Amino acid sequence: MSRVYDRVALIGLGLIASSMFWAIKRAGLAGEVTGHARSAETRDTAREIGLCDRVCDSAAEAAEGADLVVLCVPVGAMGAVAAEIAPVLDPGATVSDVGSVKKAVIDAVGPHVPRGVHFVPAHPLAGTEHSGPRSGFAELFDNRWCLIVPENGSDRDAIARLERFWQGMGAHTDEMDADHHDLVLAVTSHAPHLIAYTMVGVADDLRRVTDSEVIKYSAAGFRDFTRIAASDPVMWRDVFLSNKEATLEILGRFTEELFALQRAIRTGDGAHLQDYFTRTRAIRRGIIEAGQDTDAPDFGRVRPG
Amino acid sequence: MSRVYDRVALIGLGLIASSMFWAIKRAGLAGEVTGHARSAETRDTAREIGLCDRVCDSAAEAAEGADLVVLCVPVGAMGAVAAEIAPVLDPGATVSDVGSVKKAVIDAVGPHVPRGVHFVPAHPLAGTEHSGPRSGFAELFDNRWCLIVPENGSDRDAIARLERFWQGMGAHTDEMDADHHDLVLAVTSHAPHLIAYTMVGVADDLRRVTDSEVIKYSAAGFRDFTRIAASDPVMWRDVFLSNKEATLEILGRFTEELFALQRAIRTGDGAHLQDYFTRTRAIRRGIIEAGQDTDAPDFGRVRPG
Repeated sequence: MSRVYDRVALIGLGLIASSMFWAIKRAGLAGEVTGHARSAETRDTAREIGLCDRVCDSAAEAAEGADLVVLCVPVGAMGAVAAEIAPVLDPGATVSDVGSVKKAVIDAVGPHVPRGVHFVPAHPLAGTEHSGPRSGFAELFDNRWCLIVPENGSDRDAIARLERFWQGMGAHTDEMDADHHDLVLAVTSHAPHLIAYTMVGVADDLRRVTDSEVIKYSAAGFRDFTRIAASDPVMWRDVFLSNKEATLEILGRFTEELFALQRAIRTGDGAHLQDYFTRTRAIRRGIIEAGQDTDAPDFGRVRPG
Repeated sequence: MSRVYDRVALIGLGLIASSMFWAIKRAGLAGEVTGHARSAETRDTAREIGLCDRVCDSAAEAAEGADLVVLCVPVGAMGAVAAEIAPVLDPGATVSDVGSVKKAVIDAVGPHVPRGVHFVPAHPLAGTEHSGPRSGFAELFDNRWCLIVPENGSDRDAIARLERFWQGMGAHTDEMDADHHDLVLAVTSHAPHLIAYTMVGVADDLRRVTDSEVIKYSAAGFRDFTRIAASDPVMWRDVFLSNKEATLEILGRFTEELFALQRAIRTGDGAHLQDYFTRTRAIRRGIIEAGQDTDAPDFGRVRPG
C-alpha cells in the first residue's frame, strides 16, 4: 500500500484517532500525520508515546497544509472544531470525520467547509470499551466496515481517495446516505448501547443483589452488556442527543416487543416465547457467516485469570 | 484429581451434560458415566461420538446403580424425569441438576426424591450459543462458578462431595439459597437474555433496515446481543416460565430506567445521560478484576474470516 495523502491531520486523539495513526503508519498511507487534542494532558501523552509525527497546540495549526483533516472529536464538538480550522484549509483538501451519527455532523460541519474544500463524512464501525490516546492499536479496523456518507455533490475523486485510505487501514468501505446511516446505526448500535447502559445501571442499583454478586456471576450473560456499557460516556451522550429521532423510534419498537414478551411470561404462553427465541437464532448464524463474529465458545475469548 | 463418584448418570445430553462428560474424563472424577437422552437421534449421536461410557434407552436404566444422577434437561421437564428415576435410586445416592432456576426445580423434583437419597440442586454458570450433544467441551466450566443450592436439611457430606466434583471439572463453587439464587440470576442472566432476544427480534422485524445491513454492520454493538439471543429456545422458554416473578420484577425496574433515559434523550438532558454512562463504567472494571472477563480489545475474539 502506498501513500494516499501527503499530510493527514487528526483532530481529537482518542481511541479512533490513535488507532488510525498506527494503522496509517503500518501501511505507509501518509507522508506526515499531525495531531491535536484539546486537553494539554492528552497532548503530553501523545508526545510521550510517539502518537502523531507532530502534536500541535491548536486544531488550526494541525490542519494547516493538510490534504486530509479528520475530525475525531465527540459529535457535539464537531461544529466548533470545523469553524476553528476553516480559515486554514487549502482548496482541494478533504475534511472528513469519524462520528457515529451523520446527519447532525453534516448539519454542524457542512456550513463551515470553505468552497473548494471537499467534505466527505465517514464512520468506521469499530471500537473497544477503552478510550483515550493510549487505547489505540493498528488492527482496530481490520475486517471492519467504514461507512462513507457523501454529501450531495461530494467530489467523486475525493470520495474514492478517502475509501482507498480506509481500505489501507484494513477496513471494507461502503457508501450510504445520512438518514439511512442514522437509522441503521440506531438499530445495530445506538439502541443496543442505551439498553446495555440501562441494564447495567439497574444491576448497580439493586441493593438486594450486592455488587460483588453481580460481578462474580456476570458470565451468565450480563458481562456482555457491561463491555458495551463501558464505552466513552461523552461520546455516547452526544450520539443519543444527535440521533434522537431514530434512536427513540427504535426504542419505542423495542419497548412494544418487550411488553409483548413480558405478557407472554406473565400468562405462561410458552409457545409464543419459544417461537420468538427460535426466530432470533437465524440472525446470529448470518452474522457468523458474514465474518463479523466468531462462533468459538465464549467468542474465542482469551480466558482471564 | 481422583475419583469422586463410582457411577455418574447424566440425564439429558445437551451442551451442559456433554461438557460435563468430557470434564469428568479429563479429571478422572468417576468410574463410569452413563447417559440418556429422550430423542433416539441424540442417543445415536452420543454413541457415535463416544459421549458417555454407556448410553441407555431409558432414564431409569441410566440412573440405576448410580451414586450421582444429574438432571440436565430443560427446567420444565425435570419433575417428570425425577418421577421416572425415583424407583431405581439407591439409598445414599445423590440427585442433582443443572437448571438455571432453582426454586421451581426444587418444587418439581423434591417431592419425588425417595427418603435416604440426597437432593443437592446446583447451577453451573456457563454456556455458549450452541446446544446439543456435539456442542460440549471439557473446558466449559474452567474458572466459572457453580452455585450449589442446598435444600433445608441437605446432607453436608453429600454437598461437600458434589462441590469437590464440580471443582474437579474446573469450576469454583459457592452456596446460595434458592430464592436469592433466582433473584441474582434474574439480574445477571434472565433479564439480559430476554432483553437481547427482544432487541434481536426488533432488528429482524424492521423492514426498512434490511437483514443484510443489520448483519453486515453488527459489530457496532448488536452482535454481542445476538450471541445471547442464539441460546437454546426451549431451555430459555422454561427459564422464563419458571422464574416468572423475579424476571418480571427486574424487567419492571429496567423499563422504568429505560423510560427515564428516553426522556433525557427527548428533552436533551445531556448531564443526566453522561452521569449515568459514567457510573456504569465502574461495574465493568469490577468484572475484569474478578477474572470473569478479559479487557482485551473485542473480548480477545479470534478474528473470523
